[in-house]
This record gives sequence, C-alpha cells and structure tokens, in this order.
Amino acid sequence: MAQEDVKLLGVIGSPFICRVQIALKLKGVEYQFVPQDLQNKSEELLKFNPIHKKVPVLVHNERAINESLVIVEYIDEVWKGKSILPTDPYQRALARFWAKFIDDKIYSAAWKSVFTVNKEEREKNIKVLHEIFQFLEDELKDKFFGGEKFGFVDIAAIYIAFWVPILQETAGLQLFTNEKFPKLYKWSQEFMNQPTIKECLPPRDPIFAFFKGRCESLLALAN
Amino acid sequence: MAQEDVKLLGVIGSPFICRVQIALKLKGVEYQFVPQDLQNKSEELLKFNPIHKKVPVLVHNERAINESLVIVEYIDEVWKGKSILPTDPYQRALARFWAKFIDDKIYSAAWKSVFTVNKEEREKNIKVLHEIFQFLEDELKDKFFGGEKFGFVDIAAIYIAFWVPILQETAGLQLFTNEKFPKLYKWSQEFMNQPTIKECLPPRDPIFAFFKGRCESLLALAN
Repeated sequence: MAQEDVKLLGVIGSPFICRVQIALKLKGVEYQFVPQDLQNKSEELLKFNPIHKKVPVLVHNERAINESLVIVEYIDEVWKGKSILPTDPYQRALARFWAKFIDDKIYSAAWKSVFTVNKEEREKNIKVLHEIFQFLEDELKDKFFGGEKFGFVDIAAIYIAFWVPILQETAGLQLFTNEKFPKLYKWSQEFMNQPTIKECLPPRDPIFAFFKGRCESLLALAN
Repeated sequence: MAQEDVKLLGVIGSPFICRVQIALKLKGVEYQFVPQDLQNKSEELLKFNPIHKKVPVLVHNERAINESLVIVEYIDEVWKGKSILPTDPYQRALARFWAKFIDDKIYSAAWKSVFTVNKEEREKNIKVLHEIFQFLEDELKDKFFGGEKFGFVDIAAIYIAFWVPILQETAGLQLFTNEKFPKLYKWSQEFMNQPTIKECLPPRDPIFAFFKGRCESLLALAN
C-alpha cells in the first residue's frame, strides 16, 4: 500500500492504547505515536474523536477510528500479515463475545476490588472479580485464548496480564494468583513473554505510582 | 448449505431479540423461535448461555452464539444475501463504533429520562439523552445510517425507532420528536416502514403495558 500515514493518539500506560500498539506491531505497521495530555485536550484529539474525546484514536490517512477493539479489528482487516481474529465465523463470534465480556466486566470489577474502603463491600467485589476470572480460567483450553498463537481475546485481556498484578500489589492484595487461577496465571506469563508483547508493554513504575496514589487518596478520604 | 438447524432463544418484546430477527429475515434464514421464561430459566438457556444466562441466544447446528450485535455480525458472515455490514474496512469500523455507541449510551439514558422521580434529576437525564440523539442526528447523512439501504447501525438502533416512542408516551414526555431531531425522526419512520422491519416488530400494546406498569410502580414508591 503506498503513502501510508498512520498516527496513534494515546497516553503511555493505558491498556487500551497497549491493545492497539500490539495489533500494529503484529502487522508490522510503521506509525507515529502522538502523546496526548488528557487534562488539556488537543485540537487534534477533539477533531478526531469529537464524541468521546478520549484515546486511543488511530488516524489512518487522515481518517479517524475510535474505540480500542474497533481499532484492532480495523487493523486486522486493513493490513496483511499475522491474523488477529480467527477466520471461521463461529470462532470469530466467540472471540468477539469474550473481548466484550472482558470490556464489560473486568475493569470495573478489578478497580472496585482494590478501591473500596469498606472491608465487607470489598470482599463482595473481590468475589465478583473471582467469578469473572473463573469464567476465563474455564474458557482457556490452549496456550492462548486464540489457540497456539495469541489473538483478539488475548490482546483484549492484556489488562489482566499486566495491569491487574500491579493493581493488586499496590493494595497488598492477592486477587490474581497462580494458586487460584493456574491456567489464567500461566497464560499471563506466557503472553507477556512473547517478544511482540514485551516490546509494547509500558514502564511498570509510573503505573504503580499512579495506582498507589489513588489508593492513598482513598484511604486519606476514608480516615 | 445442507442440514441447517437454527434456533433463536428469546422473548417477545425485546429490542435485542428484534435485532437478531431482522438480521435473520434479511438473509432469508428459516429458524425456530424458542420463547423463554426469564423468571424461570430453561435448561436450554443455561446450557447455551452459561455466562450471562440471558437472551438472545442463536443456536446454529447446536453451537451457541450470544450478545445481539455479535449474533448479527455472525449471521452476516455465515449467510449470503443482502450484506449487513459495509465491505470497506473503514466503513465497517464506523458501523461498529456507532453500534457500540448506541449500546453503551441509549438504553440507560432513555430509561433514566423516563424513570426518574426527582424532576430536577430527570431534566438532567433528558439533557444527556438529547445530547446522544444529537450525535446521531449529526451522523445521519443519508436515508439510513447504512446509506441508501439500511444496515448494521440501523438494526442496532431499532430501540430508538420503536421502543423510545412507546417509552415516552407511557410517561407523557416528548423526548424524541420531529421538531427536535428531524433527520433522526424521519429515519425512524422510513426504517419502520421497510417491509422486513415491519414483519419483525413485536406487538406494541404489551410493551406499552410493561413500561406503564414500571412507571406506576415508580410513582407509587415515590409517594
């Protein structure tokens, strides 16, 4: 394809940006990363995502695509190379189902399992999170959700592999462990050990500091 | 395709079931509708949707697909005939973006605009709903969201065309009118006038009665 102009508007440390970065890396797409200040939104961001005004935004030849999973499907359809979604329609439907499940369930449940002051409430939230993890544990039949190679669901689930362990460490909790979810835990290690994934992961320390800050403000408010 | 066995587990009156029925009708797929009692969930439902235990579930040759938009994409990929999503990857991404926008925003906003007792709160909720409608009004450039023929976004938006007017009538509100949103209103009339859509719409009266019941219980609770 001639004259490719690919820009990714994003912030470092976001799992949603990371999904798009993995998809671009997997397809070998050259792109320009355009960092955004979400406290002071750029004209470019407001122009390319006037509805949600958030990142990631992929701008391909001056046309914008929003929503991380929509972007990942777009990348899969536009660029040749390793495929991200399966080719069989039924397997594609399952992949879309699980990616949506992760989007609808994980973020809020993981956040509430850590950032809830009331102990009883937090225990309830942890129970919900564990039920969600259990569904994923049961679904994982091969090395990856995508089979022998990682794919759409694995990419969608990067938050569980990389962000959840940092989140739990911040609060000194044991939400996601090898003992409780052996298959899912093993998956997380294998997945993060893939060269493509390693190259796309953001630095750990600023994320830890961000979560820690949140945790401390919450405790300060509660006391 | 030989030996097709297609079942749709659903309830009459749900916009999510209606989406799937439109897609099946559009492709000319013969199927068996298997009504479900959600107060007393069947073994079949629990077997085919063990995660969410809700409808719609499409069962195609004993393999289940869940989540209405995932099902509609599956139907589009499996059966030939009129296509539901556009073929161009960028247009496909836009269609997925808007369908997700509708799913994430409309239901909760429409519900809260009607079923909020506190008048000031309700006004705020109506303002939010109107902002959402305005985005759709601005997006509508042709006869349908899909262009000259209706497609994925139109099907996703059936709730706005058929359910929202019933909802507002229940409460004697004017949320979605020709005066406020002329393009979107015209779209809703054109869309519901399509023979395929007409055949898939559920009877109006039970839905009105259901919403009215909700409205009255809420007022009773508030007094």
